[in-house]
Amino acid sequence: MGIHHYFKSLSDMEKLYRCPGKFKYNEHTVAAHSFKVTKIAQFLGTVEEHHGKTVNWKNLYEKALNHDYPEIFTGDIKTPVKYASSELNRLFSEVEEEMAHKFVLAEFPDEYQSIYLSRFKEGKDRTLEGNILSVADKIDLLYESFGEIQKGNPEPIFLEIYQEALSTILRFREMTSVAFFLENVLPDMLAEKFIPHSELSKITENLIAASK
Amino acid sequence: MGIHHYFKSLSDMEKLYRCPGKFKYNEHTVAAHSFKVTKIAQFLGTVEEHHGKTVNWKNLYEKALNHDYPEIFTGDIKTPVKYASSELNRLFSEVEEEMAHKFVLAEFPDEYQSIYLSRFKEGKDRTLEGNILSVADKIDLLYESFGEIQKGNPEPIFLEIYQEALSTILRFREMTSVAFFLENVLPDMLAEKFIPHSELSKITENLIAASK
Amino acid sequence: MGIHHYFKSLSDMEKLYRCPGKFKYNEHTVAAHSFKVTKIAQFLGTVEEHHGKTVNWKNLYEKALNHDYPEIFTGDIKTPVKYASSELNRLFSEVEEEMAHKFVLAEFPDEYQSIYLSRFKEGKDRTLEGNILSVADKIDLLYESFGEIQKGNPEPIFLEIYQEALSTILRFREMTSVAFFLENVLPDMLAEKFIPHSELSKITENLIAASK
Amino acid sequence: MGIHHYFKSLSDMEKLYRCPGKFKYNEHTVAAHSFKVTKIAQFLGTVEEHHGKTVNWKNLYEKALNHDYPEIFTGDIKTPVKYASSELNRLFSEVEEEMAHKFVLAEFPDEYQSIYLSRFKEGKDRTLEGNILSVADKIDLLYESFGEIQKGNPEPIFLEIYQEALSTILRFREMTSVAFFLENVLPDMLAEKFIPHSELSKITENLIAASK
Amino acid sequence: MGIHHYFKSLSDMEKLYRCPGKFKYNEHTVAAHSFKVTKIAQFLGTVEEHHGKTVNWKNLYEKALNHDYPEIFTGDIKTPVKYASSELNRLFSEVEEEMAHKFVLAEFPDEYQSIYLSRFKEGKDRTLEGNILSVADKIDLLYESFGEIQKGNPEPIFLEIYQEALSTILRFREMTSVAFFLENVLPDMLAEKFIPHSELSKITENLIAASK
Amino acid sequence: MGIHHYFKSLSDMEKLYRCPGKFKYNEHTVAAHSFKVTKIAQFLGTVEEHHGKTVNWKNLYEKALNHDYPEIFTGDIKTPVKYASSELNRLFSEVEEEMAHKFVLAEFPDEYQSIYLSRFKEGKDRTLEGNILSVADKIDLLYESFGEIQKGNPEPIFLEIYQEALSTILRFREMTSVAFFLENVLPDMLAEKFIPHSELSKITENLIAASK
Repeated sequence: MGIHHYFKSLSDMEKLYRCPGKFKYNEHTVAAHSFKVTKIAQFLGTVEEHHGKTVNWKNLYEKALNHDYPEIFTGDIKTPVKYASSELNRLFSEVEEEMAHKFVLAEFPDEYQSIYLSRFKEGKDRTLEGNILSVADKIDLLYESFGEIQKGNPEPIFLEIYQEALSTILRFREMTSVAFFLENVLPDMLAEKFIPHSELSKITENLIAASK
Repeated sequence: MGIHHYFKSLSDMEKLYRCPGKFKYNEHTVAAHSFKVTKIAQFLGTVEEHHGKTVNWKNLYEKALNHDYPEIFTGDIKTPVKYASSELNRLFSEVEEEMAHKFVLAEFPDEYQSIYLSRFKEGKDRTLEGNILSVADKIDLLYESFGEIQKGNPEPIFLEIYQEALSTILRFREMTSVAFFLENVLPDMLAEKFIPHSELSKITENLIAASK
Repeated sequence: MGIHHYFKSLSDMEKLYRCPGKFKYNEHTVAAHSFKVTKIAQFLGTVEEHHGKTVNWKNLYEKALNHDYPEIFTGDIKTPVKYASSELNRLFSEVEEEMAHKFVLAEFPDEYQSIYLSRFKEGKDRTLEGNILSVADKIDLLYESFGEIQKGNPEPIFLEIYQEALSTILRFREMTSVAFFLENVLPDMLAEKFIPHSELSKITENLIAASK
Repeated sequence: MGIHHYFKSLSDMEKLYRCPGKFKYNEHTVAAHSFKVTKIAQFLGTVEEHHGKTVNWKNLYEKALNHDYPEIFTGDIKTPVKYASSELNRLFSEVEEEMAHKFVLAEFPDEYQSIYLSRFKEGKDRTLEGNILSVADKIDLLYESFGEIQKGNPEPIFLEIYQEALSTILRFREMTSVAFFLENVLPDMLAEKFIPHSELSKITENLIAASK
Repeated sequence: MGIHHYFKSLSDMEKLYRCPGKFKYNEHTVAAHSFKVTKIAQFLGTVEEHHGKTVNWKNLYEKALNHDYPEIFTGDIKTPVKYASSELNRLFSEVEEEMAHKFVLAEFPDEYQSIYLSRFKEGKDRTLEGNILSVADKIDLLYESFGEIQKGNPEPIFLEIYQEALSTILRFREMTSVAFFLENVLPDMLAEKFIPHSELSKITENLIAASK
Repeated sequence: MGIHHYFKSLSDMEKLYRCPGKFKYNEHTVAAHSFKVTKIAQFLGTVEEHHGKTVNWKNLYEKALNHDYPEIFTGDIKTPVKYASSELNRLFSEVEEEMAHKFVLAEFPDEYQSIYLSRFKEGKDRTLEGNILSVADKIDLLYESFGEIQKGNPEPIFLEIYQEALSTILRFREMTSVAFFLENVLPDMLAEKFIPHSELSKITENLIAASK
């Protein structure tokens, strides 16, 4: 019994890889993903607040920080869409939730159990904070898949992921922060270029000519 | 549709890691594990045959080669025993079997479907070949966990795995090949030593003295 | 100009390694460290609140999440204590702060600049939240160095780090959450054992005997 | 002396990399390669049998499983064609064979020595099983080199390997299973595309338009 | 005190990565970079000598071998040009030099201190050997950045590095060895091609046709 | 034809690993090893010169820098002593020398061929510089094997390597620089300790007590 097991489990999250075996160029751990999602949620919340919404920051941070914690019990599983079943996904969520429940009862002092049972629950509810989490989670996934596609990873799964992530974000397009993302961030991401290998010769010639 | 997807899936098995995040010193892929299990099963079968048993070699190789193939659909999941449920394991087996079924129907020509449906079924039945597979699978797991413990990996999960693997092997101790393993192989494995760091000084002194 | 550069910089934090070249067993990225520190700060804040302190959660999360963000400009540098100078450390902080300042002005829309200038400032001030951050940062460092020592990494730098981290934590021992850590968590961490390699033979014998 | 050394050598095969230093995107171990070759040989044998040939399965599996085992003594060496000599390759085969011989005599019980001496011999003879092994070995090499080329690895060695592997396969084009490969598998492999980075903008626009 | 610490520090250079987190395809350590620079400097010196210049070889090798040694104290830092300050770079050089000074006094026997203080000084002075070092250092950097661009790394920093390295080399274009590089080496480097993925189908068809 | 191929081959040396598959804690490339050997040779030469010997520095640096260059053609092969044959080693040296010869004729301009043919020859002759190379090569190997043993790598091959390296060094014990190494460096290396895990509790208690 003990918080030591909880603290130690945090470093397990550093060793859990997302979509194991799929990312070739940049691998992502569940710990790093959780960090990025929380940072993105922070920015989205800032935009919402600036436009008059009331953000429950404590709630938002708790949801974002903990949203993938139960993966320490099962790992990150992503099966090719073609063969996956929604049944499987539902079963997984149930199993993870049950294990997180057992874990809290086994490892946390009585006085903190109810707090942590609540923190480890699914956070993507229909509150503003739940919606921000849903969007932030998919923005990070969009960046992760874009990074692979941009570098030339030919696995079709990344195009599937890109499309699925963007579709989910678009379901929240009424939110000011999502509108901001679609207008100000997404175009810049898509404008990122390959360095044109074929242009190196010309750049080289110009530099040589200029140096004479 | 196509065998190309089947051949390509083999290289997915090179990227699936066993117990992801747990092995520190030597990581093991599902492809390499399948290879080792097949080689161990080959040896165990050789011992059984030498002592008068009839081994169905075609059957044995098929079982050993394919026994973890369905993991390409879900990955290798190993949850700390303390929080796992046998329910989860059962669900996983079901899901994997269903996906393997769908995969064969989608990718294999009609004339080979029944052959591969049978090859991707659970192979640990009560035949001699099924028993050899059960033992070979656990011998490799024993070696994998021993390798980590020997090198100083302090994760308690490896002691749990070691004990669980050995206990399973012992359930088959009536088999001649298991007796051979327990008498001739296991003691050599356990006799492997750390290089005594503290003895380096003495070894060094002796070499220096001898060179004068 | 753009938030895209800010979002993209988050994945740079996934590639910044702490104490590059030193950790042998588990490497830690600045992204993962930031995540763990935020989770630990969450727990410490929970303990403080339970014992009557008022925690400004929005403030605490902002401090913890962003405390190492400016390292994207310089990397994580840790020089052997023996040769380092406090002058160097001061210069680094200044340079990082100046670069973070430039970055915010260059990439953020006007309306969010003052918010982010404040978020990227040094957070370890003398407020309760600043103190919790100081402690959480060192608890994670303590775990990181303990993990290496426990697995047998002989680099003396980890003992130096362990001692320096613990000394800093002890400077805050008047805090309830630090007392909780010292009494309930630290002893469990230190009680973690190596798996006794030498005991494997005995465990094996017992299992074999029991199976007869 | 002992089978323990044989079992332990299997995990050495997990650490032997093919063409060390050449593969950038997916590295391949000798263990994983042996697994894939055996699986491919299994499929090719299935096609031959379906078309009336008699396959000696025990023999086929033995050949495929063990065909690179002697590399544990020398590693996998692949020298740029331009500077290599056939003399070198011949010498290597001799040395490997001699070492495998010594190994069997040193480590295997008398009663299994002749069986394993035979298993570790070069398997690519002129039997149907030898031919299947020759083809399966090159199909896996074709996939390995294709994987690198497809992802953009500019090393000319992979084009050399691709051409040499395909040329060898074509020498066996009279075999039904090779015809099957050339007609049904190779075209699907070649049809694999890069995800067109340039099309991401259009895909994105369509998704956004469709969501309105 | 002791040369053991100096010898041991050499293996620290094997673990210091250049531009940490930036290279995706081939990472480079400070040890390997130092080796390559010394080999390139050797060739440039050979060309100079062949054309009548007097090369102080002892001096040239000392400069090249040791030119990045002081990075063991701070690591290799490369900040995006946009946010960097020349002030930072100057501070770094000062700090490294001071630490190297302390290190020599602490670890070397008196009789070798002045020799090593001189060896660890900045070597890029205006002598022929200093100029060769400046060029060799940038040729290796040019190759490192070219390698990433050629393989498709889209990070703009590599184009910046390529241009900065080439510009520095061009400042020394009056040297015979630099002229040799520009005329005989650079064009071959730029002529390196991607393997045209789209041509694989044609190559394959030709091989198949030729085999009939 | 061209020096570009020579410069490019230097980065192949960054990807050639020594004793592939054996080092668990720190891997070593042929490039980094060549660097370390040259630095160690530099120190040994400095000691010899200080004690009145005449060192041909140009010669010494050439020998040390290039001593493993021909491994780009075959890789680094290290077979367990038990099964290796001196015949194999002799064959390897011959093959490497022949390939290096072909390479120089194919890639270097006529005017530099004889220089490089001589540079790529075996450098361990009976001159002072040849002896320094022999010793420096083995000192680095001693450090490499010590590093693994000290961290707990149980592979017996590292004890074999340690003993063989030390024995070779001792054959040169009449050299002043070797005497310096044996008296001043080796004892410090052997005095390196594990951090006593068991002492962490005591260190912790003392720090806590002292802070009260």
